Amino acid sequence: MILALAGGVGGARLASGLASCREPDQLALVVNTGDDFRLYGLHIAPDLDSVMYALAGCNDAERGWGLRGESWQCMRALEQLGAGAWFQLGDKDLATHLLRTQSLNGGASLTKATHGLCQAYGVRHGILPMSDQPAPTWVDTDMGRLPFQEYFVREQCRPRVAGVQYSGGPPSAAFVQSLQNPALDAIVICPSNPYLSIGPIIALDGVRSALKQRAVPAVAVSPIVGGASIKGPLAKIMGELEVPVSPVSVARYYAGLIDGLVIDQKDRRYRPEIEDLGIKTCVTDTVMLDAEARGMLARQVLDFAGTLN
Amino acid sequence: MILALAGGVGGARLASGLASCREPDQLALVVNTGDDFRLYGLHIAPDLDSVMYALAGCNDAERGWGLRGESWQCMRALEQLGAGAWFQLGDKDLATHLLRTQSLNGGASLTKATHGLCQAYGVRHGILPMSDQPAPTWVDTDMGRLPFQEYFVREQCRPRVAGVQYSGGPPSAAFVQSLQNPALDAIVICPSNPYLSIGPIIALDGVRSALKQRAVPAVAVSPIVGGASIKGPLAKIMGELEVPVSPVSVARYYAGLIDGLVIDQKDRRYRPEIEDLGIKTCVTDTVMLDAEARGMLARQVLDFAGTLN
Repeated sequence: MILALAGGVGGARLASGLASCREPDQLALVVNTGDDFRLYGLHIAPDLDSVMYALAGCNDAERGWGLRGESWQCMRALEQLGAGAWFQLGDKDLATHLLRTQSLNGGASLTKATHGLCQAYGVRHGILPMSDQPAPTWVDTDMGRLPFQEYFVREQCRPRVAGVQYSGGPPSAAFVQSLQNPALDAIVICPSNPYLSIGPIIALDGVRSALKQRAVPAVAVSPIVGGASIKGPLAKIMGELEVPVSPVSVARYYAGLIDGLVIDQKDRRYRPEIEDLGIKTCVTDTVMLDAEARGMLARQVLDFAGTLN
Repeated sequence: MILALAGGVGGARLASGLASCREPDQLALVVNTGDDFRLYGLHIAPDLDSVMYALAGCNDAERGWGLRGESWQCMRALEQLGAGAWFQLGDKDLATHLLRTQSLNGGASLTKATHGLCQAYGVRHGILPMSDQPAPTWVDTDMGRLPFQEYFVREQCRPRVAGVQYSGGPPSAAFVQSLQNPALDAIVICPSNPYLSIGPIIALDGVRSALKQRAVPAVAVSPIVGGASIKGPLAKIMGELEVPVSPVSVARYYAGLIDGLVIDQKDRRYRPEIEDLGIKTCVTDTVMLDAEARGMLARQVLDFAGTLN
């Protein structure tokens, strides 16, 4: 069994690649919920939805987030009522938020609510919230400390980041079970933003030590390619944190938690520096432009993990 | 000042007529909330919305409920997820439910949440929920006791009604203030369904006795015209309750609470029977086909009330 840690859109791509080459009972996708928040009384879980929509094949690849064929009537009505939100709520996407909120209000855990949504979307692989408790991520910026979505969506990542604060708290029972599963073959950290997407998962109670004491190989895929982030504000944040924009910084961030790092052809020159940290490298094409590329990278990641036993 | 009691679509017509001939500070519209329920975590208040949309002039007169120019993308998405609801949620209408739910979840009373929505919709007249506490109406039928919306929408009023159960509970502070307002000139009971829309209001703690001890004239408008209900299941329910389908039954229902009843030309023959109950009658055209007719009927109702001083 494979345990993969993922954040939003970036991680969702490799997550769907992994799903294409592993049976549902052979893959557990643990997803960041540090971005979750409430809007108009609805529980919104952007990263869970990004992974679910990607696996269901109904994500909008062009826009980069949300559902394909989306419409925005409700948003427009809210705007006309003077209550427009900086967070975009598509009419179809709203159905997801409504069902999740109904389920949570009825007493279900986020794990159970997510399972129900996955069934409704025809997703058979397990998508597991990192925690069933609220564990919001806060971003310290030159505008002060901001809730994640205010930094990420409202301010569009413009404020200069000085640090990121995680809530910690208990990981979900299903996440703990996956970590302890005797059938576990490998742990994969998807090419999500380490600070914003993977950091919140690692910060949960006991997760860092469980990853340190792992009995199976752990590999990460670098979200930095050729001195830039494939998606999102990672490179910008690295600059603001005065960290070199290279896979070496990714390797340092995960040092002690991974045995191998998959890096792009363009970053071949960083191999020695990364290997000096005691982390093996695998050099390949890491930019996943289509489903075939996602499946191919996933297979390479798993093969690479297999060599690290 | 005029205090009007109203239910859903039927009452909303006269309510908008009253609003057209009274200044905002001279009219308080107290609306049934016995139909309110939660769906997908949202607080839905169908009667408040019907009155608000009618006063805002954005109601769909053709469909008879909801907003004009509505779309149904979110509903379709819910259906595709196998979670379609029997209650229709339009995309624009959802904006109302989202804002109301956000406001209530933030600790506002339903009175305050409704005031905020009215401002957003440009409605300047006071629309007051009958209560700030949940006060659900239950319908006893040959299918058993049903929550109001299950009887009304899901079962489309098909079950045979044996009785209606009201929750009672405290009226809203604004409703009580309107009842006790020294500037009160008259009380109007709109042509809403007495059992389903007005009954829940009258059943609130102290309201029946306040209406009985009124110091100002109270008039109702019959929702029964020519042996049929203008809208909705009233005539059907009267048959099931073995009550004659005529304004006389309406007069009997409100006996002791009203001084006058406005009936349609078609029901002129019932005048003596109604007046025998100690209730004065005013005969006119009561079917409101357009805004002009609504305003005209409202003026007649207020003039009639004026004669009963």
